[in-house]
Amino acid sequence: MGADGITPRGEDFSRWYQDIVQKAELADHSPVRGCMVIRPNGYAIWEKIQQGLDRLIKQTGHQNAYFPLFIPESFIHREAEHIEGFAPELAVVTHAGGEKLEEPLVVRPTSETIIYSMFAKWVQSYRDLPLLINQWANVVRWEMRTRLFLRTTEFLWQEGHTAHATDEEAETETLQMLEVYRRFAEEWMALPVYAGLKSDSEKFAGAVRTYSIEAMMQDGKALQAGTSHNLGQNFAKTFELQYQTADNRMDYCWNTSWGVSTRLVGALIMGHSDDKGLVIPPRLAPLDAVLVPIYKSDEQRTAVLEYAAGIEEELIRADFMIRTDAREQFTPGWKYAEWEMKGVPVRIEAGPKDLEKGHVVLVRRDDRSKRFVPRDGVADALRETLETMQRDLFEKARAFRDERTIPVDSYGDFRDYMAADRGFARAHWCGGAGCEEKVKEETKATIRTVPVEEEAREDGTCVVCGAASPRRVIWGKAY
Amino acid sequence: MGADGITPRGEDFSRWYQDIVQKAELADHSPVRGCMVIRPNGYAIWEKIQQGLDRLIKQTGHQNAYFPLFIPESFIHREAEHIEGFAPELAVVTHAGGEKLEEPLVVRPTSETIIYSMFAKWVQSYRDLPLLINQWANVVRWEMRTRLFLRTTEFLWQEGHTAHATDEEAETETLQMLEVYRRFAEEWMALPVYAGLKSDSEKFAGAVRTYSIEAMMQDGKALQAGTSHNLGQNFAKTFELQYQTADNRMDYCWNTSWGVSTRLVGALIMGHSDDKGLVIPPRLAPLDAVLVPIYKSDEQRTAVLEYAAGIEEELIRADFMIRTDAREQFTPGWKYAEWEMKGVPVRIEAGPKDLEKGHVVLVRRDDRSKRFVPRDGVADALRETLETMQRDLFEKARAFRDERTIPVDSYGDFRDYMAADRGFARAHWCGGAGCEEKVKEETKATIRTVPVEEEAREDGTCVVCGAASPRRVIWGKAY
Repeated sequence: MGADGITPRGEDFSRWYQDIVQKAELADHSPVRGCMVIRPNGYAIWEKIQQGLDRLIKQTGHQNAYFPLFIPESFIHREAEHIEGFAPELAVVTHAGGEKLEEPLVVRPTSETIIYSMFAKWVQSYRDLPLLINQWANVVRWEMRTRLFLRTTEFLWQEGHTAHATDEEAETETLQMLEVYRRFAEEWMALPVYAGLKSDSEKFAGAVRTYSIEAMMQDGKALQAGTSHNLGQNFAKTFELQYQTADNRMDYCWNTSWGVSTRLVGALIMGHSDDKGLVIPPRLAPLDAVLVPIYKSDEQRTAVLEYAAGIEEELIRADFMIRTDAREQFTPGWKYAEWEMKGVPVRIEAGPKDLEKGHVVLVRRDDRSKRFVPRDGVADALRETLETMQRDLFEKARAFRDERTIPVDSYGDFRDYMAADRGFARAHWCGGAGCEEKVKEETKATIRTVPVEEEAREDGTCVVCGAASPRRVIWGKAY
Repeated sequence: MGADGITPRGEDFSRWYQDIVQKAELADHSPVRGCMVIRPNGYAIWEKIQQGLDRLIKQTGHQNAYFPLFIPESFIHREAEHIEGFAPELAVVTHAGGEKLEEPLVVRPTSETIIYSMFAKWVQSYRDLPLLINQWANVVRWEMRTRLFLRTTEFLWQEGHTAHATDEEAETETLQMLEVYRRFAEEWMALPVYAGLKSDSEKFAGAVRTYSIEAMMQDGKALQAGTSHNLGQNFAKTFELQYQTADNRMDYCWNTSWGVSTRLVGALIMGHSDDKGLVIPPRLAPLDAVLVPIYKSDEQRTAVLEYAAGIEEELIRADFMIRTDAREQFTPGWKYAEWEMKGVPVRIEAGPKDLEKGHVVLVRRDDRSKRFVPRDGVADALRETLETMQRDLFEKARAFRDERTIPVDSYGDFRDYMAADRGFARAHWCGGAGCEEKVKEETKATIRTVPVEEEAREDGTCVVCGAASPRRVIWGKAY
């Protein structure tokens, strides 16, 4: 049974998702088609994602900068594959300052073109390389079917853009950032992911190679949670991004770009939440715990509130984000349900008996397990509970995913498995676009990722056409 | 004499400003008219500003959220004064997804309209009030004459938007945020400001009252560094933002909005920098100190680099942001000039003699004063130096401003003072728009701010028309 107003997952996964987003006040539809409003509860999660990931991006030597929202229309048209991919999704400013513009401006759908045109001004010689830049920004892609967080016309993201002296360095960077995303997904978001290469049909418009991380949601579908592109010299040649080599020749730079977006908030919800509401991994929870004081009489009230105030003070001193919910108009039970809905990782209960025994009760949001801990050790106990919960969420998601990622060796089995909407298939693929297309048409599944590790090599035959295949790839239906 | 490539302030203030922005690599012009690129050195300062101010905004009970970039054109037109003020500056999206839109979308120049339309969905009763929201976002105002950081077509800012049950509460909020801005300007940016009311001709399009903080730049001109608006019920009535009162009536909410922008980076530069380059107050400096090792022989090199490594390690442990500049291809003197250009607050020099004597040299960026400190006390000495420098920068700016803010009692003196381009005049004003307009036409000066404190009351006669005046106001030429 779901909490008040939440459709159970088993009944209608899509409605369940929308109910959580609305009831936990994470986001709302706006009067502008396909654009969302990120409400404070949702934005606070995005801020935690930003903080965690920004640190990893800086630790790997990148610096933040900011480039214009508008891109001259001609820029987008210069790289042939790029415009082919993005043309259908562009929003275009034709008038400004009361006049028609000489050249229309595109609202950035991604910033390769404007950024590499600036890099061309800044890079002169090999001494200026590598150039390692990231920006946090909003982008716009005109989408027909939108869904809060998962696919919206405007979304927030970070996009990294780098320039290097060699192809090899660019490939190393592309893989480094894929690994940063994998680590962030698994260690912060508690979501296990498959990391690997995209097939040609799924790669970024203008890239030589696109890598991605893919997570499994609770309905068995895949969510692409981050991408990292090796752009080769495609954009460098288009925007004259050249440098003088150590031996005085001129050469084009090698570029990479990589990004994750507010879609991650959707991944968090669909990866961990339940029929009671939101579940957030502690490392990304804006609030660590809520303290609910319990009392009946006025006398109890005074004593319990004083007890609670001491606990709160100690937890704040230990650097936790904590709130005491002392509202008079609601019962403890009502409060429990509300904070469960909002996904606060731990609830601390303190009543007259707890005071008497000198302990408090910690209740975990995910499995609702209870723990009595001595009052004096409350900070350590809370820290330990949060760490355990973070680990358990990851292990639970991993077990779920592993159980639903199965090897499949015949096309009949493959079709049956995809029709059952259970999860991912690990099946051989010959590398041909025709087989990929046939699967997509007949089962709606796509190749989520091609594992690139040496250990993934395994001789076999394509599940579709029977031709030789060097490895199994991950197939699934995707958001 | 200025550093290499920097025009001295005394020669051409405007060129000096541009030179600093370019040479310190703070920002660059983009291929899009009036839009700037904020380069890593400039963006790092903006990140420090965001961190400091975001904390103050949250401490006063506000939550961050995010609203759409696009606003339906009809929304902007609903509030009469609002559209009159913003119409000439709008950028308009007319086409998207390959088709002409039914209703054009305006790229937000400010978000009152879209935000209060959402508040109307969320606010039902007095229990939902106050609603205290802030957003960090980009906005677009089509400007004819642009200048990096000070006035650009697109800029980054924060805009706070709140809804209250009473006029009084809204006024209290408006003044609270004005005070937050004053504190931030003075304690973080080390820029003394005049805080007060704007005259009717300068108030925000749609506001009942606009307050601002005004700083004096080194050329004696005023820079409006932040505004806080009491919007009354203007927008609430336009967007049906109503609430049920405790006694079951329906009433319109009272709104406030307030913002500061990337313009603050320009204020920092023009407020503190010199002919050697950028000067940043330590609290907003991305890097606290740079360590320059000095040596001649290989033997010295090994010993000094080891000495420097120990110092760096200790300073990092003490939580400073520090970088050792051990580049072989540059001399210490060259490095000094480069880091002075970039505005790092403290330079630490360590050579063979310093090693021998067990001390290091700290050199302040602002006055280039030298201090020899014992190696073992380096962290404390650095902390103290940074704190002193922060205080001194403020005091210096205050002395400069106070000296150039003079009482003026005749219109002849007023015109002479403004013609001399020295600074601000404190002169009586009758409150009439005619006198204000006359001054603007004849001297280019405007009323920067009307002091509202009780102590500012002083009977006098208008410097322009001679009519009775209750107080002196601050006049100046503005950016």
